[in-house]
Amino acid sequence: MGKSTIGVYGMGVMGQSLALNMMRHGYQVSVFNIDYDVTETFLQTKISDEKVVACKELKEFVDSLEKPRRVFLMVTAGKVTDLVIDQLKEYLEEGDIIIDGGNSYFKDTIRRFRELRECGLHFVGTGVSGGERGALEGPSMMPSGDPEAYQYVEQIFTDISAKAKDGAPCCAYIGGDGSGHYVKMVHNGIEYADIQIICEAYDLMRHGAGLSVEEIQQVFERWNKGRLKSYLIEITGKILKKKDDETGKYLVDVILDKAGQKGTGKWTSMEGLDIGAAIPTIAESVFSRYISAQKEERVRASQELGVDLSVNIDDKEKFIDDLEAAVYAAKICCYAQGFELLKKAAEEYEWTLDFGQIAMIWREGCIIRADFLEDIKAAYDQDEVSNLMLSSKFKKELLDAQKAWRRMVCYIVNCGIYAPALTSTLNYFDGYRCARTSANLTQAQRDFFGAHTYERVDKEGIYHTIWEE
Amino acid sequence: MGKSTIGVYGMGVMGQSLALNMMRHGYQVSVFNIDYDVTETFLQTKISDEKVVACKELKEFVDSLEKPRRVFLMVTAGKVTDLVIDQLKEYLEEGDIIIDGGNSYFKDTIRRFRELRECGLHFVGTGVSGGERGALEGPSMMPSGDPEAYQYVEQIFTDISAKAKDGAPCCAYIGGDGSGHYVKMVHNGIEYADIQIICEAYDLMRHGAGLSVEEIQQVFERWNKGRLKSYLIEITGKILKKKDDETGKYLVDVILDKAGQKGTGKWTSMEGLDIGAAIPTIAESVFSRYISAQKEERVRASQELGVDLSVNIDDKEKFIDDLEAAVYAAKICCYAQGFELLKKAAEEYEWTLDFGQIAMIWREGCIIRADFLEDIKAAYDQDEVSNLMLSSKFKKELLDAQKAWRRMVCYIVNCGIYAPALTSTLNYFDGYRCARTSANLTQAQRDFFGAHTYERVDKEGIYHTIWEE
Repeated sequence: MGKSTIGVYGMGVMGQSLALNMMRHGYQVSVFNIDYDVTETFLQTKISDEKVVACKELKEFVDSLEKPRRVFLMVTAGKVTDLVIDQLKEYLEEGDIIIDGGNSYFKDTIRRFRELRECGLHFVGTGVSGGERGALEGPSMMPSGDPEAYQYVEQIFTDISAKAKDGAPCCAYIGGDGSGHYVKMVHNGIEYADIQIICEAYDLMRHGAGLSVEEIQQVFERWNKGRLKSYLIEITGKILKKKDDETGKYLVDVILDKAGQKGTGKWTSMEGLDIGAAIPTIAESVFSRYISAQKEERVRASQELGVDLSVNIDDKEKFIDDLEAAVYAAKICCYAQGFELLKKAAEEYEWTLDFGQIAMIWREGCIIRADFLEDIKAAYDQDEVSNLMLSSKFKKELLDAQKAWRRMVCYIVNCGIYAPALTSTLNYFDGYRCARTSANLTQAQRDFFGAHTYERVDKEGIYHTIWEE
Repeated sequence: MGKSTIGVYGMGVMGQSLALNMMRHGYQVSVFNIDYDVTETFLQTKISDEKVVACKELKEFVDSLEKPRRVFLMVTAGKVTDLVIDQLKEYLEEGDIIIDGGNSYFKDTIRRFRELRECGLHFVGTGVSGGERGALEGPSMMPSGDPEAYQYVEQIFTDISAKAKDGAPCCAYIGGDGSGHYVKMVHNGIEYADIQIICEAYDLMRHGAGLSVEEIQQVFERWNKGRLKSYLIEITGKILKKKDDETGKYLVDVILDKAGQKGTGKWTSMEGLDIGAAIPTIAESVFSRYISAQKEERVRASQELGVDLSVNIDDKEKFIDDLEAAVYAAKICCYAQGFELLKKAAEEYEWTLDFGQIAMIWREGCIIRADFLEDIKAAYDQDEVSNLMLSSKFKKELLDAQKAWRRMVCYIVNCGIYAPALTSTLNYFDGYRCARTSANLTQAQRDFFGAHTYERVDKEGIYHTIWEE
């Protein structure tokens, strides 16, 4: 067997799936894992006639690759990634390419990119979205680094990535150093918000309007035929069909309302705060998981602070229509927040990002996949807007939806249902379209107690007032 | 002149004020500044017969102090603080005490505490709140470090700190390493939220109910006689009286609605996200400053997305009463969030924090000073609650206020006013008191697309479902 086109380092589920995906596209792949037993199991259980070179030693692994060598890391993000890169540096030569497909923090990717450039090595940080199944059948891929190195991986990446309905690969070069992992992080932040909005819609139908699981299931199926059509709406419909084998109840009713998280929505929210991008829907979605985790305290508080606030709903169809409009409008605004964060990041980290293209590579393979993303591409192409909410299509839809959205939020408020995403997103929309906020008073207060100065509405300059003698 | 009791390093406005404050309490103080000219100006403009030793050289400064030496740093937070500590280490001896009263990030304080302990030096990180005036007349002080070192500074600190109406000093030992700067950070986060709530109340009266500045000014004066009484409400009343010399208009109307910030509210919000504390009111308050900064974009968006949503208010007195209840309830919840963050931090960083005492040292000297803080102390003392919202007093007040609060938020929603703090805080309250949230569906989705597993309501364990074949 000749040299392999690419090597995959790390034979966890993601590494295995990605290596198989490459082999199925005709590539000969070398594979390596610190513990060779894992590789052995992989060979025995997953491999039949694929072109694979399983290596026991790192040197053997590196030597098995054609030059410039391409080494795809699929290892635990953080210190392990640094350790592996350090080991690899001993064997790699100038011009070789390390690809990091792990869930790395973008600032680590920026650092690694710079360190490896000093050693004459290329580093391609790549967001890979879609989990185990995506890795195997086609993930959404968000590679970044220097364009020169990307040339050497482009063909493989576009081959193994998910394909949109029009056949386009869900992979495109994002930009410099850490931008790929950044875009993946923002994807996950949007995912948190999208999930939260859907869960609130479910909750409002279930505990607000009092619909049965069957009825709600049908609503989600119907919504998945309209403008809300997306992977997350689709799986929600499927989830609501699933019965628990043991109890015969709907599985959703058996699951505890304590949400876990792996920290990427938290990264996104912290990043928005750090660089000055307003992304309240994403932050509220993360906070809602923290609140959900306090199950015992919530149960106690519900006894102490419980109030009867039930609100009668006369017209359930109208309620569902209003809810659909609210969900759709909130979705537009939360995607607008995500892209606003990307815009800020492009300035902050000096990346040239193509927002429309980023939307396009999320169309398949990843969790937020939806036709909706083509509307975002179109908004950027046709209207050249600074913010998605100002594009002709979304603007019209927001204006059409806002009355229903306001009715729904009033309903939420009056019956005391916890729906932070639908609620705060409407207020974000009202803030974005508010020509004058109350921040003049904020500035007056800051100048009063801290001499922090202020600007004036009628002339340029920085002013300070002696507010009291 | 004999040795000085304490030395102040850094003769900026804060350092000067603090040194003067010490001298006025009878202490002989050595002062040092990198640029001696600044010290010279201080001597000429601020000093008459105070006991001060002005030093040109660092060695001279250190030698002028009685042992163990106490060096109070009031320098720019960040790298400068590290540089100054490095310089000082050359001259200080085992057992000497460095105090950092700057606006340091608590993780830097933890690091410095550990590094200096290795050198046999004590480090007292101290939150100092109240700005220039507080530093001179009595700040709220939040010292932390090892209790042994605190003994050597306690008398000076309690002497120079603000005094509550009952005479108690607004200074108390907080806890280990970085806890003092942490508590100061949380103070600032609460301050952001408190300011935001007040500004929203102003905005609702001004642009919602259409009250004049004079009328609003009277409302704030009235509120400052009731349960909302606080420094921030008081200065808002004063601000709304102030006319612009040039135009004769109310100054608040001349100030541009672009709020600045120095980053401490951002730290608090990021910290809440990082350690898993739900503090949406604080985060929304920071986001509102970001939105305010986008003035030009907001003006454009108001033209594109403007909608006529005016809602008639028949009974202005009732509106103001509702607003007062909403502001008060939101205030309780936002302080509850701040203390919830402190509770989480105590676990995370292994500090023993006395929440009631922390409230007490905020009673004077700092921006959020208010009698209200005594209610917090009482809540912790009497009810031993896990969360302030569950204390007998606040629970009753929240239940009494919630209907008015809901009316106010519905009003906000219907007339499209940007009031994220009042809005999101109500939803936070509803989340906290919600026995079952929609997080069961979140967990089902996460298990569907990522095999992230879930717990069940009816038995212990971690479960995973094959959702589709």
